[in-house]
Amino acid sequence: MQENPFAVVAKPGDRVADLSTPRPIIDEDRLAANIARVQAYMDQHGLNFRPHIKTHKIPALAAEQITAGAKGINCQKISEAEAFAAAGFEDILITFNILGPQKLERLGALNERISDLKVVADSTATVDGLSSYFASRKPLTVLVECDTGGGRCGVQTPEEARSLAEHINNTPGLAFGGLLNYPKPGSAAVVQAFLNEALLLLRADGIACPTVSNGGTPSLFEAHLVSAATEHRAGTYIYNDRSMVRAGHCSEADCAMHVLATVVSRPTADRAVIDAGSKALTSDLLGFADYGTVVGYPEAVITGLSEEHGVIDLSKCGDTRPKIGDKIRIIPNHTCVVSNLFDTMVFHRDGVVTRVENVAARGLVW
Amino acid sequence: MQENPFAVVAKPGDRVADLSTPRPIIDEDRLAANIARVQAYMDQHGLNFRPHIKTHKIPALAAEQITAGAKGINCQKISEAEAFAAAGFEDILITFNILGPQKLERLGALNERISDLKVVADSTATVDGLSSYFASRKPLTVLVECDTGGGRCGVQTPEEARSLAEHINNTPGLAFGGLLNYPKPGSAAVVQAFLNEALLLLRADGIACPTVSNGGTPSLFEAHLVSAATEHRAGTYIYNDRSMVRAGHCSEADCAMHVLATVVSRPTADRAVIDAGSKALTSDLLGFADYGTVVGYPEAVITGLSEEHGVIDLSKCGDTRPKIGDKIRIIPNHTCVVSNLFDTMVFHRDGVVTRVENVAARGLVW
Repeated sequence: MQENPFAVVAKPGDRVADLSTPRPIIDEDRLAANIARVQAYMDQHGLNFRPHIKTHKIPALAAEQITAGAKGINCQKISEAEAFAAAGFEDILITFNILGPQKLERLGALNERISDLKVVADSTATVDGLSSYFASRKPLTVLVECDTGGGRCGVQTPEEARSLAEHINNTPGLAFGGLLNYPKPGSAAVVQAFLNEALLLLRADGIACPTVSNGGTPSLFEAHLVSAATEHRAGTYIYNDRSMVRAGHCSEADCAMHVLATVVSRPTADRAVIDAGSKALTSDLLGFADYGTVVGYPEAVITGLSEEHGVIDLSKCGDTRPKIGDKIRIIPNHTCVVSNLFDTMVFHRDGVVTRVENVAARGLVW
Repeated sequence: MQENPFAVVAKPGDRVADLSTPRPIIDEDRLAANIARVQAYMDQHGLNFRPHIKTHKIPALAAEQITAGAKGINCQKISEAEAFAAAGFEDILITFNILGPQKLERLGALNERISDLKVVADSTATVDGLSSYFASRKPLTVLVECDTGGGRCGVQTPEEARSLAEHINNTPGLAFGGLLNYPKPGSAAVVQAFLNEALLLLRADGIACPTVSNGGTPSLFEAHLVSAATEHRAGTYIYNDRSMVRAGHCSEADCAMHVLATVVSRPTADRAVIDAGSKALTSDLLGFADYGTVVGYPEAVITGLSEEHGVIDLSKCGDTRPKIGDKIRIIPNHTCVVSNLFDTMVFHRDGVVTRVENVAARGLVW
């Protein structure tokens, strides 16, 4: 991974306040507390926990999650799984329908390399594609993805789940590994009903279902309401962000990621412009009308982003307003997409840099 | 630049239809036509042209723009300028207020390295910061950024422009290089009035103004209406995108960038899910309600993106709908931000790969 070849981003002992901007920074204590809090919740309710590494893409952080008690990791694409397999992780679930010759070949190599690789499928087309490659190789474990209301991928009914599970078990090179869903937040009862019915159908057919994997940070603290599930997956909780604060899952004081930015212009009394635009904060709104929370200036509104500029409306702020050259901290709407824009991530404790990690799985395509 | 270390993206002679997805691809003939068309327009109107490289971030493409007749290049941050200076470019304008010790040091090194570096400023704070570094070094050329209605950075009045120009010329280590603005589209008359008034004030004070730089692809074909300007800057035109089609600047047939994606799920008759999400297409809406145009399926609507999934509503489509495994092409809302997500860019002619370029200035922070 090569960040800017012309500049060293930071080194341990540097003061965060002196860093060049824009720069996402991670508070070590908040990070550790977020990891511990969610693992404790999962432990309390007897759920296996499988953190999604898309949020941080950093093997050292996944290792901290495993040390805390997580069972394995969740990746969203083969390249992420490859980066984490290279770092020594053996229990990896890729929650995506994998299609196409290049991906199948790489998936096959990965399956040879690690002990416990799993993928998902929601159609016979995907299953048969997997079988075309794996029939003559080390078998691959495949979970059936169920659409319990999230409206993305997934079979639509428990009966379809049973039918696809049976198809997987009858298909050379594949083994049925369980059920998986990515739910709509606040729908625990619907999820439970769907998964439970699918489990009953599988049991009636004598099909073993080792894993039922429920997911998502938005529905994280409802995980205990889905007793059909054996594990939960979540990513964003490790850093937290503005959308998690809005969801009531954490407070601003639990947000481990801030994007540090500099005020570069104050064209008018009511307008500030910062050096963090959509190539630092991203355009993800997640239902918000603006692009982040400015720490210390609760009335400031980041009204617009161009690629390298953020425009802040200060008209609701009092007399104390940021000046040209001031550094501000922003809690982004969505941390996972910010991670994807930076090749290195700077960590700090009380404003002093503790370490700089490569974002090993950043920017990888499939 | 390191893309996925586990996979070769493409090589000349490969068929685009065989590439793994998601993958942005650039049509060579459309690219060449876009470069030629805009340069011809600038030549016709006697305007210098300064392409903004933020759109492609690829030195080889900037070289094609220069060969076609462009005067120099426009970068948005020091790291972009460093990457292009390393590739041999000498006339570089960085359109940003540059503040902070690390950036000043790098800007100084860049100014020593190339013959014709220019930056902008819109405040005495920025100017004095530049002077603190450049007073004892090779002088730096500084243009005054004017806010002619774009609502981002810039001095607010022609009188402020004159005053800041005078301050630059009276400040050690700096030389006033001209005026610059990034206009609101459709505001040529306002822009002309502002710039003309500022020019008259400068002339009255005997301050030479070598360059008046107007900008933006959205206002590209109004450039000839601003007779006060000596040059125009634009980036997006080289690839074009859905927002440019909407603005009437081009047709879909002029869009050189497509994002190739695979249909990975068809959970219902009306829903398709593709492997291009916000980490391929970005969440940039630019006023649209959806995330791109699906070529060949004009009634398909990309209603939502998660990080690695795109959800397409097919309910308005006829009987011919994409199947699982089909590859589709998407014209993104905004090309510049897509470029920033991929370390390499694949070019093709008639569907056969011609070259693969490193996106040299991708993902660089300041």
